[in-house]
Amino acid sequence: MPISPEIFAERMRTMRPSTIREILKVTAQPEIISFAGGLPAPELFPVAEVSAAAASVLAKNGPESLQYGPSEGYALLREWIADEVRSRGVKNVKPTDVLVTNGSQQVLDLVGKIFLNPGDVVLTENPTYLAAIQAFQTLQAKFVPVPTDEFGLVPEAIPELIKLHQPKFLYTIPTFQNPTGITLIKERRAKLAQIAAQHNLLIIEDDPYGKLRYRGEEVPPIKHWDEANCVLYVSTFSKTIAPGLRLGWVVAPEAIFSQLLIVKQASDLHTSSFDQRVAYAYLTQNDQTAHLNKIRSAYGERFDVMDAALKAEMPAGYTWTKPEGGMFLWVTGPKELDGMALLKRAIEQKVAFVPGRDFFPSDAGANYLRLNYSNSTPARIREGVKRLAALCRG
Amino acid sequence: MPISPEIFAERMRTMRPSTIREILKVTAQPEIISFAGGLPAPELFPVAEVSAAAASVLAKNGPESLQYGPSEGYALLREWIADEVRSRGVKNVKPTDVLVTNGSQQVLDLVGKIFLNPGDVVLTENPTYLAAIQAFQTLQAKFVPVPTDEFGLVPEAIPELIKLHQPKFLYTIPTFQNPTGITLIKERRAKLAQIAAQHNLLIIEDDPYGKLRYRGEEVPPIKHWDEANCVLYVSTFSKTIAPGLRLGWVVAPEAIFSQLLIVKQASDLHTSSFDQRVAYAYLTQNDQTAHLNKIRSAYGERFDVMDAALKAEMPAGYTWTKPEGGMFLWVTGPKELDGMALLKRAIEQKVAFVPGRDFFPSDAGANYLRLNYSNSTPARIREGVKRLAALCRG
Repeated sequence: MPISPEIFAERMRTMRPSTIREILKVTAQPEIISFAGGLPAPELFPVAEVSAAAASVLAKNGPESLQYGPSEGYALLREWIADEVRSRGVKNVKPTDVLVTNGSQQVLDLVGKIFLNPGDVVLTENPTYLAAIQAFQTLQAKFVPVPTDEFGLVPEAIPELIKLHQPKFLYTIPTFQNPTGITLIKERRAKLAQIAAQHNLLIIEDDPYGKLRYRGEEVPPIKHWDEANCVLYVSTFSKTIAPGLRLGWVVAPEAIFSQLLIVKQASDLHTSSFDQRVAYAYLTQNDQTAHLNKIRSAYGERFDVMDAALKAEMPAGYTWTKPEGGMFLWVTGPKELDGMALLKRAIEQKVAFVPGRDFFPSDAGANYLRLNYSNSTPARIREGVKRLAALCRG
Repeated sequence: MPISPEIFAERMRTMRPSTIREILKVTAQPEIISFAGGLPAPELFPVAEVSAAAASVLAKNGPESLQYGPSEGYALLREWIADEVRSRGVKNVKPTDVLVTNGSQQVLDLVGKIFLNPGDVVLTENPTYLAAIQAFQTLQAKFVPVPTDEFGLVPEAIPELIKLHQPKFLYTIPTFQNPTGITLIKERRAKLAQIAAQHNLLIIEDDPYGKLRYRGEEVPPIKHWDEANCVLYVSTFSKTIAPGLRLGWVVAPEAIFSQLLIVKQASDLHTSSFDQRVAYAYLTQNDQTAHLNKIRSAYGERFDVMDAALKAEMPAGYTWTKPEGGMFLWVTGPKELDGMALLKRAIEQKVAFVPGRDFFPSDAGANYLRLNYSNSTPARIREGVKRLAALCRG
C-alpha cells in the first residue's frame, strides 16, 4: 500500500532519528577512534561473574527465570535496589516504591506517558540528554531551559519559569550531567528541593552516573533533601554492571507508581525475568565496591589523559569541562565553530564525537562537542585528540 | 507533594490495570489451580539448553553481549527471524525488515505510537487480546469490532466499516486467537488480504501461537497473501523458547520500519543484547522442531483432557471452542452468567480463570470465560474443571 506521511500520527512530525545512534553505526568500524557513543568500557564488564550468575540462576530457578513475571519487577531485585538507593542517602525507600524498567530510558517514556499532554512544558537543563528530548518529544512536549552555570542549574530561576510556563515537571541529571559532565552543587540541591516543595514542582532526577565518581567528594541525590516527596529518582545498572542487560529503575510514591505500572504493563508487560535474576545473582555473589573502584580508577585515568591531551593539542579558543566522574566532557569552541561540519571532516580522519546541537531542545549549540572518554584506551585517546585538534587548528 | 488526578495526562483517564495481571498475583499461590494466566508450561522450557547458550555467548562474545546494541536488534537474530518468517510462507522478507522488540507486546505500543492520534479508530475482533486494548487505549484509540463467527472475522463486513469509521488499522490474531482459540480459515485470509489491498487498509497480524498447532492442517499467515504490503507481521519467542526473555518482533516495510525505529529508540534504546544473543545461540545450537513437537504434544493432550473434563462435568447451557493449537479455549455460559462473580467464588474453591468481559473493548461479554490449558498438568486440569463445573451447576 502507498505510505503517505499523513498515515502517521501527529506526534511523528517532530521526531527525528537520533544523530548519536546513526553516528554510532558509522563509528562501529574498529579503525575509527570514537569519542561519540555513551559506551562504558566493555573490557571492564564482569563477564565471568555474569556467566556464573546466569549459570546459577538457571540451575536453581530455571523455569521461574524464563517465565512471565510481575510488571513491577523481580521482588528480590526490588529489595536490593531499595537498599542501594537508601545507601545513596535517600531515606524511607521501600521495595514497593521501585519499578524495574528496560534501562532508565524506559522510565522517561513511562513518565512522559503518564504526565504529558501535547503542548505540556518540561523544564530541562540546557543542554540536556538528547534521548530524553526524544522521549518527551514523542509526547509532543515543549521544552523550557533552566539557566545553568558551572555549578549546575540555578534554582532561584525556577519560580519565575513556573509562573510563566506551568511546567509538568523538571527533568534533570544533577551528577556528571550528560552531555556537560557538570555536577549540581550540594547547596543548590537543598535549595531545589525546597523550591519544589513550595511550588509543588515534580522533579525527575536522572542519576545514571552518580556511582562513577573518580575524585572529589560524594554528593547525595536531590532526593536526599526531598521531604515533600516531589522527586522521582531514576537510575540504572547500565554503567555499574552492563548496559546490554537493559535494567533501570524508578523510585516513585504510590499514587504515581500505580500509574507508571499501568503504562509499563501496556508497553511490554514486564522487563526480562532472566536479566533481572541474573543481575540480582551477580549483585549478591560479588563485591560491588571492588568492581566499581576498578571502573572509577580506569575512567579517572582516561579523563586525565584526555584532559592533558586537549591541553597539549587544542588551539586557543577551546575550553572544556573537568568532571569528577561520569563518562563525558564538553568542549566549547569559538562562536563560529560548526560542530556538524567538523564531525564530517573528523570521520575522514577516523575520529568521531557528538556535535553539541542535538543536546539543545532549541537550535542553539553549534559550537559545542561532547567527548566520551570511558570507551577508549589511553593510547587511543591521545591519538584521537591529536587528530581532532589538528582539524580544530586547521 | 499532593498528587491530584489532574496532574496526570488525559490518556490516563481511560486506563485501568489489567484484571489478568492482578488476578495472576492472587493465583500465584501453588494451591490454586489456575486456568487464568496466558502462561506456557514452564516444565517444558529448555533450561539446560538456554544455560549452555548463555555460557557460550559469554565465553565467545562476552563484552559485545553486555554492551549497548543497535535499536534494530542483533543482526544475526534478525537474519534468523527473516528465515523463520519465510518458512511460515511469507515471501520476500529481508533481515532489514525485522525489528526486534521486548516481546510482541512492545510492537503494539510502538505501532500505536506511530499511527494513532487520540480518537483514531482501530478495527479488532470482538473479543480480542486485552493487552492490545490497553496498549491502544493508552493512545486514546477507539475500537470498532469486526463481526466474527466460528471461522474467524468476516472480511466482507470490512469495506462498510472502513467507509463508516476510516480506521487507522485492523488488529487481528488470526491463528488460535486470544481469547477464543478460533483460527481464521484460509479462504478468508486470502479475501482479507485482497480487501486490504483494495482499500489501503493496514493490518497488524499478531501471530504468537501459530507454531503451537497440535492437530489439523497448517494455515499460512495472512501476510502470505499480502502482495500489496498492507500487513505488519508480528510474532514472538515467548511461546516457542520462553517469555521471560521478552523477545518479539515485527516485519514492516521500510517506510513504516523507519518510524518504528525512531519510537523504539525513544522508548528504551534497544532490546537486551544479552537475551537476543542467548536466544540466537539457543536457536542455532538446538533442534527447534523436536522442541516444538514436545510442546505441541503436551498442549494437545492438555486440551483433550480439559475438553473431556468439561464434557463430563459442565451443566447444560455451557459450550466451548475446540482449538487445534494455542493455549486457550473460550467458554460461553448462559446469558445470565456473571463471569466476575463466578471468579470470586472460584477463587474460594482454589480454581481461577479470566472472565470474558475484559476482552471486549465495549462492556459486553459478562457470560464468557477464558480457560488456559497450557499451564496445568492433566491431573490438575481434571480437578480444576471439577471444581469450576460444581460452581456452574450450583
